Amino acid sequence: MTFTAAERDAMASALGAAGRGVRGANPLVGAVVLDAGGSVLATGHHRGAGTPHAEAAALAALGPVPRSAAGELTMVVTLEPCNHTGRTGPCAVAIAESGIGRVVYAVADGTDRAAGGAEYLASRGVRVEAGLLADEARALNRRWFAARGAGRPFTTLHLAQTLDGRIAAADGTSQWITGPDARRHSHGVRALAEAIVVGTGTVLADDPRLTARDGDGTPLPRQPLRVVMGRRDVPAAAAVRGDGRWTQVRTRSPADVLRELAARGIDHAMIEGGAGIATAFLAEDLVDELWLYQAPLLLGAGRPAVGDLGIGTLRDAVRWAPDDAGGPSHQRLGDDIALHLTPMPRAGLSAAGGA
Amino acid sequence: MTFTAAERDAMASALGAAGRGVRGANPLVGAVVLDAGGSVLATGHHRGAGTPHAEAAALAALGPVPRSAAGELTMVVTLEPCNHTGRTGPCAVAIAESGIGRVVYAVADGTDRAAGGAEYLASRGVRVEAGLLADEARALNRRWFAARGAGRPFTTLHLAQTLDGRIAAADGTSQWITGPDARRHSHGVRALAEAIVVGTGTVLADDPRLTARDGDGTPLPRQPLRVVMGRRDVPAAAAVRGDGRWTQVRTRSPADVLRELAARGIDHAMIEGGAGIATAFLAEDLVDELWLYQAPLLLGAGRPAVGDLGIGTLRDAVRWAPDDAGGPSHQRLGDDIALHLTPMPRAGLSAAGGA
Repeated sequence: MTFTAAERDAMASALGAAGRGVRGANPLVGAVVLDAGGSVLATGHHRGAGTPHAEAAALAALGPVPRSAAGELTMVVTLEPCNHTGRTGPCAVAIAESGIGRVVYAVADGTDRAAGGAEYLASRGVRVEAGLLADEARALNRRWFAARGAGRPFTTLHLAQTLDGRIAAADGTSQWITGPDARRHSHGVRALAEAIVVGTGTVLADDPRLTARDGDGTPLPRQPLRVVMGRRDVPAAAAVRGDGRWTQVRTRSPADVLRELAARGIDHAMIEGGAGIATAFLAEDLVDELWLYQAPLLLGAGRPAVGDLGIGTLRDAVRWAPDDAGGPSHQRLGDDIALHLTPMPRAGLSAAGGA
Repeated sequence: MTFTAAERDAMASALGAAGRGVRGANPLVGAVVLDAGGSVLATGHHRGAGTPHAEAAALAALGPVPRSAAGELTMVVTLEPCNHTGRTGPCAVAIAESGIGRVVYAVADGTDRAAGGAEYLASRGVRVEAGLLADEARALNRRWFAARGAGRPFTTLHLAQTLDGRIAAADGTSQWITGPDARRHSHGVRALAEAIVVGTGTVLADDPRLTARDGDGTPLPRQPLRVVMGRRDVPAAAAVRGDGRWTQVRTRSPADVLRELAARGIDHAMIEGGAGIATAFLAEDLVDELWLYQAPLLLGAGRPAVGDLGIGTLRDAVRWAPDDAGGPSHQRLGDDIALHLTPMPRAGLSAAGGA
């Protein structure tokens, strides 16, 4: 594999652009188009499920390629262009039709339904090379690759707690620990997911609607499937039943729930709690992304957000790294703060999860 | 009292400048000098114990007042100018000698040793008026006024914990939860205090030196008095004994410790823990400022940073507000975050504290 310095710079820039996207059903992807001299003509990144892929965004930013330049342009992209028609058309076709003559990508997608893009491009006479900054590209989407490799949805855990890690006071009161800005933000995160998972305990205790709503309480256009996990019955009048777009998975096993969601074609699930559910997903290393909302309160007692993880010594702590994908890894929301975190690899546990 | 619009604007600006100072032994103070037309000539603020007062900083920024302007300038300051020679000369004298003709201040200092500035200025022919934006000025230093009113030092609590509020794992391991950047920052905060308070339990468990050190471990120029509270004996070889600049107060009562420190002339104490000490100060509302360092770890078990505060329901939680004095109320330090918080008033407890 031989890559030019301009291509290497472009890949670094594409990785930076990718990091401006949001995590979820799809990986973070960035793309840069170079002219024959190695100058950047256009950049694009994927903004989340249902929006154009990075390659399409870069092509849109590029505009029509003059006939004279056809074959001389290079697209540098962090992931192998897709070859399937999902919510958007196949990128490999769009690239081939654009007149781009060379494609450099970092890593293959690895999912059966997206693969074959490189092969298709080559069949259309586009020169394709892979492997530039491959380690960096894999690291950027490490948990997404792990989830896809295990055939399970990407998971986002939501925790809203006090400074001392409590989600309810000793008497069970918990509304509201965080303020309206933090709650609105978490509804925005909720709206990005395809499913929201809570336990039967939360349904019985709080009777949540689990819809994604704006600041006025108006439902957002996109609503995730509401999923209740656990063996207890969901009351006939429970708010979670709502318009009927809900389901119960009668298990306490996170892996079982994710298997069921995967079977329903769900690629991104948000885990909302309660503490037992959050702890179970964390204990099995089945959390791919964490949004932690923290209110400036101390309770000193009450229900902890996270229960026993079987960790006896500091060296075995579950470690996270700040995640700046889609925005700053920490931000102030009213008097609260939101932390966006990505899990660090753990020794002795497969990130792919228990399945 | 009559104040001009320019004086009102200047007081707002002086309050803003005050907020760039650091909390501790002295209150936050800002000062603005206006010319006869109400234009701002100079601004100053107090940068912490041992540095020039806000008035002196504003006079230094102003430079010599031309004889022609003498008597025409106004100083607007958030606190009554002091009349005592502490670590810096008395501001009232400096103002009178500068040729400033009018002083507008928000609130009186309230401490005996600083009072009398307004009277002195009037005796020197300076026109003095008080009370402009007094509520705002009092709020800015609410806890400092409360501490001084109770005759006790201002207190800063330091907590360094995991995301789930643990300061040690189940087996007691705790070094290091936070990273080097956060530890360096906390040493800088430590160096601002006149005393550091820990419990005998911390001395016996961790044997800390309790010196303020830079990133290389070199002691900083200013070192607080090391104070051990509790009834157990401090071992002859304990590191806290160091160069001998330490003391033990044989009590478990925060109010007793603060009384003892006040008797030694200490105006600012940093409470470093452990959890029992932190909890005792919090329970008695004797924490005036909180620096909370949080590492991106989950333990799920182990020693909580804060123990039982006697709070049964969410409404009674100990509430904090982000404090931007001296810098942003939340900042990322390596992979950790630091939160700087000020306590909100509590119902049924005197902020002045138990004494």
